[in-house]
Amino acid sequence: MSFLNPKEQLQKIVAGTVDVVSPDILHQKLIQSEQTKTALRIKAGFDPSRPDLHLGHFVLLNKLKVFQKLGHHILFVIGDFTAQIGDPSGCQKTRPILTETEVKENAKTYATQVFKVLDPKKTEICFNSKWMQAMSATKMIQLASQYTVARLLERDDFAKRWQQKNPISLHEFLYPLIQGYDSVVLKADVELGATDQLFNLLVGRDLQKRAGQDPQCAITVPLLEGINGPQKMSKSYHNTIALEDSPANMFGKIMKLSDDRMLHYYALLSDKTPKEIQQLKQEISSGSKHPKTAKMNLASLIVNQFYNEKESQKAAHEFERVFSAHEIPSDIPEYSYPATKNIWVCHLLREIKLVPSTSEAKRLIQSHAVLINGEKITDPNLKLQLKKANTFIIKAGKRRFAKVRIT
Amino acid sequence: MSFLNPKEQLQKIVAGTVDVVSPDILHQKLIQSEQTKTALRIKAGFDPSRPDLHLGHFVLLNKLKVFQKLGHHILFVIGDFTAQIGDPSGCQKTRPILTETEVKENAKTYATQVFKVLDPKKTEICFNSKWMQAMSATKMIQLASQYTVARLLERDDFAKRWQQKNPISLHEFLYPLIQGYDSVVLKADVELGATDQLFNLLVGRDLQKRAGQDPQCAITVPLLEGINGPQKMSKSYHNTIALEDSPANMFGKIMKLSDDRMLHYYALLSDKTPKEIQQLKQEISSGSKHPKTAKMNLASLIVNQFYNEKESQKAAHEFERVFSAHEIPSDIPEYSYPATKNIWVCHLLREIKLVPSTSEAKRLIQSHAVLINGEKITDPNLKLQLKKANTFIIKAGKRRFAKVRIT
Repeated sequence: MSFLNPKEQLQKIVAGTVDVVSPDILHQKLIQSEQTKTALRIKAGFDPSRPDLHLGHFVLLNKLKVFQKLGHHILFVIGDFTAQIGDPSGCQKTRPILTETEVKENAKTYATQVFKVLDPKKTEICFNSKWMQAMSATKMIQLASQYTVARLLERDDFAKRWQQKNPISLHEFLYPLIQGYDSVVLKADVELGATDQLFNLLVGRDLQKRAGQDPQCAITVPLLEGINGPQKMSKSYHNTIALEDSPANMFGKIMKLSDDRMLHYYALLSDKTPKEIQQLKQEISSGSKHPKTAKMNLASLIVNQFYNEKESQKAAHEFERVFSAHEIPSDIPEYSYPATKNIWVCHLLREIKLVPSTSEAKRLIQSHAVLINGEKITDPNLKLQLKKANTFIIKAGKRRFAKVRIT
Repeated sequence: MSFLNPKEQLQKIVAGTVDVVSPDILHQKLIQSEQTKTALRIKAGFDPSRPDLHLGHFVLLNKLKVFQKLGHHILFVIGDFTAQIGDPSGCQKTRPILTETEVKENAKTYATQVFKVLDPKKTEICFNSKWMQAMSATKMIQLASQYTVARLLERDDFAKRWQQKNPISLHEFLYPLIQGYDSVVLKADVELGATDQLFNLLVGRDLQKRAGQDPQCAITVPLLEGINGPQKMSKSYHNTIALEDSPANMFGKIMKLSDDRMLHYYALLSDKTPKEIQQLKQEISSGSKHPKTAKMNLASLIVNQFYNEKESQKAAHEFERVFSAHEIPSDIPEYSYPATKNIWVCHLLREIKLVPSTSEAKRLIQSHAVLINGEKITDPNLKLQLKKANTFIIKAGKRRFAKVRIT
């Protein structure tokens, strides 16, 4: 158990959270935990409907890490049963139902990812299929009898879909009840989630009360915005930085963020205080700090967290070499091209439409105006070996660029 | 199998029904039944949340009887599982959930009652708990995924409760799905119900289609009004004539009907054609027939159906003797009085407020103005023995009446 007293623990826990229902209850639980020398049971649920955890989860994982360091017991719940229903939280439409096989495949990679942040020895991974597959229809109906249709339609995303006359499948109303029931089974003392999970966390409290348990404390953390667009980072929106992304990919995605989003990421993903972030913002707007430098720092920090210092430095160096050294515009066209052992460089240039003909390609190469990843090509008869998963930038003439991805 | 051809069968079946979805489908099923010499499977569901069948069910039982006489197979489904959820059809509020024991107790009396109308040899009694108790939560969720919240809120009674902001428990939305699933399990060709069941019968069609079955034909019969008030006859509204009521009780309840309601009962419970009922109505309004005679005929008919000719005549005779012979007004006050072995008649008269004092009671008895069940009381010192469940009418003076029920 922790050496911190309950009040100090409380401060560390509530820092950076959005909702705590309620701080008093949490304080009481922490006091009781200290007196009885019993770790609190801290639950967080994850949806394995797509296989990768991402930076959005990292916000939550960080808070779990805080609890873990304080000596509490982490229950990492993989909603493999609920994923077969689909989690409509924050979505505007009914999700497709996944098969048991798909869900299991997706759930496999979870444990390795979460242990990049949490200590495996102090983390209990639970699959809710364990108790949900054994549940009878009768029990499900009894759970359903404890909630009204009106109450469920109060949930933000349901309310929005209802107003917009978008269909809500009846089974989606059962999902919050199942998530709540997980808390009953696990006897959770605290449940953590993003802000859009507050309703579900409170359902857990209700169901625990009805089951005669001391209801859990509900804590929410802010939602991380996706790498583009206004939506939250979510596998559903294809706007994530996955914890499984390669160092180069992770680094590259962060370098593409807008300046505002970069500051938002600093706030949720780094140790910087609100004051320090405000200062960084001022340095950027006054021109005393280049936003690219701030992004490089953030990207290094993140890659370092999920890989190591060496990988982080390598990614930064690679990024500088490929993207920055030649001042490549950020919006160059991308092409996919099949792997091949022997392709004439002029033929490739024409194929990806950088030149209208191979003779024009020859002329450009002879005048030293073609560069691949910043290196000049001098031989117009050059044959290239294109390996799967390679990516390179070709420059032809003064302003024509293309990014080629070998598939 | 029947000797009637499909077209003749169809005519007998649709007579007096409200909805048939659709006559063409039904005709096709009847043709196929004749060709393959296979009886159609005719389903009707009954809610055992209160133990007695009543005249409202008789409308439906009569139609089942028609199918049975035509040679088809009757599936009499006792919703013992669904009764543990509560059937909100036509109700304005959430019903209480019954325990398994209560439901089983209530379901016991069903078989004997239904066989007052149907032939036991040709009737299959099914309890839906047989398959529903074995159902998993997973299956329940899959059923739920086939319907939207909006579609369920279209059902009349749900729509009404929603508009009036009366709570709808989520489990009530599962009930139509369970009823529909019963049709899948039983491979029903036809399902019969009252008009307020149409939505549920159509859910059965949907779920059968999705299960790859030929969907059932949905047939509704009119709702019988209760003995008083505007509501349908229902155990929920305590306005029923139960099939288990004693002959005298059944007879008495019918005699209390308003004239309009009596004509409605003739239409739904007798063999009279609409033309004959119209004629009866005219005879009553012209004064050529006393409504009491029409009611006596109806009451005799009903008691005869559920008991026999002898019981029917006895009930009629008893009714005449007790109620009619003394021209008792229909709105006399009723009193409950505890059973006792020895009570002074004058004391009782004062207790039930027919007289202001025992001396006034004595005076009336001495002037032969007190009658009990039409018999004059002559001894002012008479002691009465009041047996539990007895009912009698006391007349004191010219216009004072009271009905006394011993409890």
